[in-house]
Amino acid sequence: MAASPLFNSSLLPKPKPSKHRNPKVNGRQSPIIKCTTSSPSIFDTNDNNSSTPSPPPSVARAQKHRRAADVNIRDEANRHCSTHNFSARYVPFSSDPNKSTTNEWYSLDEIVYRSRSGALLDVQHDMDALKQFDGQYWRSLFDSRVGKTTWPYGSGVWSKKEWVLPEIDSDDIVSAFEGNSNLFWAERFGKQFLGMSDLWVKHCGISHTGSFKDLGMTVLVSQVNRLRKMNRPVVGVGCASTGDTSAALSAYCAAAGIPSIVFLPANKISLAQLVQPIANGAFVLSIDTDFDGCMKLIREVTAELPIYLANSLNSLRLEGQKTAAIEILQQFDWEVPDWVIVPGGNLGNIYAFYKGFKMCQELGLVDHIPRLVCAQAANANPLYLHYKSGWKEFKPVMAGTTFASAIQIGDPVSIDRAVFALKNSNGIVEEATEEELMDAMAQADSTGMFICPHTGVALTALIKLRNSGVIGPTDRAVVVSTAHGLKFTQSKIEYHSKEIKDMACRFANPPVQVKADFGAVMDVLRKYLNKPPKYH
Amino acid sequence: MAASPLFNSSLLPKPKPSKHRNPKVNGRQSPIIKCTTSSPSIFDTNDNNSSTPSPPPSVARAQKHRRAADVNIRDEANRHCSTHNFSARYVPFSSDPNKSTTNEWYSLDEIVYRSRSGALLDVQHDMDALKQFDGQYWRSLFDSRVGKTTWPYGSGVWSKKEWVLPEIDSDDIVSAFEGNSNLFWAERFGKQFLGMSDLWVKHCGISHTGSFKDLGMTVLVSQVNRLRKMNRPVVGVGCASTGDTSAALSAYCAAAGIPSIVFLPANKISLAQLVQPIANGAFVLSIDTDFDGCMKLIREVTAELPIYLANSLNSLRLEGQKTAAIEILQQFDWEVPDWVIVPGGNLGNIYAFYKGFKMCQELGLVDHIPRLVCAQAANANPLYLHYKSGWKEFKPVMAGTTFASAIQIGDPVSIDRAVFALKNSNGIVEEATEEELMDAMAQADSTGMFICPHTGVALTALIKLRNSGVIGPTDRAVVVSTAHGLKFTQSKIEYHSKEIKDMACRFANPPVQVKADFGAVMDVLRKYLNKPPKYH
Repeated sequence: MAASPLFNSSLLPKPKPSKHRNPKVNGRQSPIIKCTTSSPSIFDTNDNNSSTPSPPPSVARAQKHRRAADVNIRDEANRHCSTHNFSARYVPFSSDPNKSTTNEWYSLDEIVYRSRSGALLDVQHDMDALKQFDGQYWRSLFDSRVGKTTWPYGSGVWSKKEWVLPEIDSDDIVSAFEGNSNLFWAERFGKQFLGMSDLWVKHCGISHTGSFKDLGMTVLVSQVNRLRKMNRPVVGVGCASTGDTSAALSAYCAAAGIPSIVFLPANKISLAQLVQPIANGAFVLSIDTDFDGCMKLIREVTAELPIYLANSLNSLRLEGQKTAAIEILQQFDWEVPDWVIVPGGNLGNIYAFYKGFKMCQELGLVDHIPRLVCAQAANANPLYLHYKSGWKEFKPVMAGTTFASAIQIGDPVSIDRAVFALKNSNGIVEEATEEELMDAMAQADSTGMFICPHTGVALTALIKLRNSGVIGPTDRAVVVSTAHGLKFTQSKIEYHSKEIKDMACRFANPPVQVKADFGAVMDVLRKYLNKPPKYH
Repeated sequence: MAASPLFNSSLLPKPKPSKHRNPKVNGRQSPIIKCTTSSPSIFDTNDNNSSTPSPPPSVARAQKHRRAADVNIRDEANRHCSTHNFSARYVPFSSDPNKSTTNEWYSLDEIVYRSRSGALLDVQHDMDALKQFDGQYWRSLFDSRVGKTTWPYGSGVWSKKEWVLPEIDSDDIVSAFEGNSNLFWAERFGKQFLGMSDLWVKHCGISHTGSFKDLGMTVLVSQVNRLRKMNRPVVGVGCASTGDTSAALSAYCAAAGIPSIVFLPANKISLAQLVQPIANGAFVLSIDTDFDGCMKLIREVTAELPIYLANSLNSLRLEGQKTAAIEILQQFDWEVPDWVIVPGGNLGNIYAFYKGFKMCQELGLVDHIPRLVCAQAANANPLYLHYKSGWKEFKPVMAGTTFASAIQIGDPVSIDRAVFALKNSNGIVEEATEEELMDAMAQADSTGMFICPHTGVALTALIKLRNSGVIGPTDRAVVVSTAHGLKFTQSKIEYHSKEIKDMACRFANPPVQVKADFGAVMDVLRKYLNKPPKYH
């Protein structure tokens, strides 16, 4: 396996001195509390001064005390915070290990979106510092933080803070306790449609804003919050997006009181698509142009005004998204699944999953990583074509319309990241036609799920790989679900009404009209109940 | 405090012998595995034969091994299951402690909805058996199950299995790993609108089907699944509901392969309201009558056909819902919040919260319970009027239309349960007008939440009690959010478009129209950014 440029350790910039703000609680100044610990604390009440790892929870269990009434959870976090020598920085992303020795790097406190040569950036952690602690230590640390409200570790993202943004003060973090999402055993779907006994769906979309974007946006907005508190001139955060990104951006900015600015094409989208940023108080500009026009304008505007651009090439967001991979391992008690299947459009997320798994391997939490599958809509399948050509020259495509609207992308920003992830995880790329993805969604729903079309794409990939025997009946496979089905009720209605052109809608389940008459209702019901059972 | 009839212990029916099915995995018969443990196992690998409590996790930590490839998680659960003497049964609900010595009771394996006298039923646990284990034991047991996929304890409901349906085989449970929902620190809302530092929102609606109904329906459908496996003649489960109940019922029935039957008034509801049961494979009858007509017909039909009725008086559902209260305590490390505020319509949920807290107190997990507040829409406020009259004679009202549609109920089924809960928790009832609840929802959204109108009702109650000084600035208060805002985008759109009659929509945030011109966009943005900040 090629050495990853992400995990090279080298001399890193000196971490800035730990800064502890004095948050005001109801106008009262809290006392400054000095932090003296020098190792990441397993327990929020740990006040150990030594630099050796704290004992795992099985050996010592800290006493929990209710905080004093005038202290909020941020103050409490400060009291128990730790200084350490973990750090991270931006480096140019490179899939060529020989180029990974570049001297170009940037502090995470700089506002920079691309390298000097225009390449993608990557957040590189000081792996030597993290390796001072063994895999058992990290597993215990992460396990000890699950299910609590301890700030900020109650979040599934920030429970891995040392691996995400190690240098941010807990007090600067903007969190909605995201993550810790449902890992659902798809028992009936696996059994009925695939003959599989160990199939799981990671429901990242059962979340605060209804999509996995929360995981990345808590990191981006937290870093912006830090920059603003350092008096860096950031007046707000902007994006041009009709979907999940603007929703997540607006929600996290609203939680922090940071202005969010959303550019949208007028008359091109419905109020329903707008409702999340509007409700979350974003400044929504409805501009008399198309989507590309909005993108062009926001780039021009952010070059002029100090508005942070929350675009899809942002590497901070991937640091949050990678925690979903770590969380899957954790939910399986650190057993590695055989397969993880991720829908892919702009292709940042498949790389984020790779990075999460790979860090767990490099730091000794697990001894190998799962095989990754990236699933694309056939109407927007440039990665699939690239894979099929044996990773020869990559060619963007003109993306056609797809029900999986969030991955309707012909020229993905993170193509290099995705290819790197797949090559290094013995990965596979599959595709799904519109009929396949909608049928898969309907089949999944009929077994008790309520998924989005993107998850239908991923399930189609699974079905194909299972049918061809690549995925075995007893393999443990995890399908990553990226948004809540409640965001896609319109496409489900069209399917079950059989209103989709050129689609049989084989699994449609329309309602049955009946007269308000006991006999009529009984007739219909008896007929239904006497049918050869479609269940079991 | 009056003795609760629910927790009286007495001679209980002999628990049926532990029954272990041999689930088939991909058509292969698994070996029968004998269960020998006699105490609830903290660890899924515990095979202790003694009847004394298992050691807490800090003393012994079981080794975890990956299950063999041909064993699924139900088999694994069977291998490690435990027999014990916990049990529960139906008794008539009575708010009069003197009547709690009634001899009337029913096994949970009987199909019974009301007592002989037509009263509500209640699930009564054998508290003496549960009391063989102390509070520390239960806390450790519940804590040890958080965040794992161990069947069925990965679920927030079934992690409390001994307190929910103690006698059900793990193999009969129908679960989507519900519960473990987000307990959100509403930092900015508390600070900005209420001067509060310790305000929390329990997001029960960030869930599989988008509402808290999942918590109860997993219990009801699991029990039905058990009855069917006992060859009791239950051909399906039915309900007449336009909303969250039919969605949850259909999803859980779909997961189990049990027919679900939903009666709905034709032409009275939109396909969008129908989409969840339809997608989840329910047999949906669209009947040419109104809602009351549907209710009448389903009662007649279920008297004739062996269809289990999933109506709102069902006491099994409350056993699942009560786990949200236990979960709140757990998330706070077993510290008791001062206030818990629950929206109320049919009034089962406020009682479920009471029951969850009360069990934790009676079994020594906590030493007191929070004060409960029930929040009603002013347009459907019979409990509020009853409370204001000093609990004199209860009078149903004719419920007016409210945006909080799930609590638009004038004659609540669970009125006696709610009064009992409030009287025994030093409780309060508040109400919210349409303008108040919509404004509260918009204010909450502007601080990063995305809540439903029912949560707006609960927040209004909080605002009123805070303004009147009943709730103090440093009190720890938890607002229970019952559904995901994604289910209520239409009302949010109307609000932010200022399309609601007789409502100022003071917090509306409509988009701003701009020409596709750099100068025009810059002008608008500069004006926005120079405004006196409405944030902070």
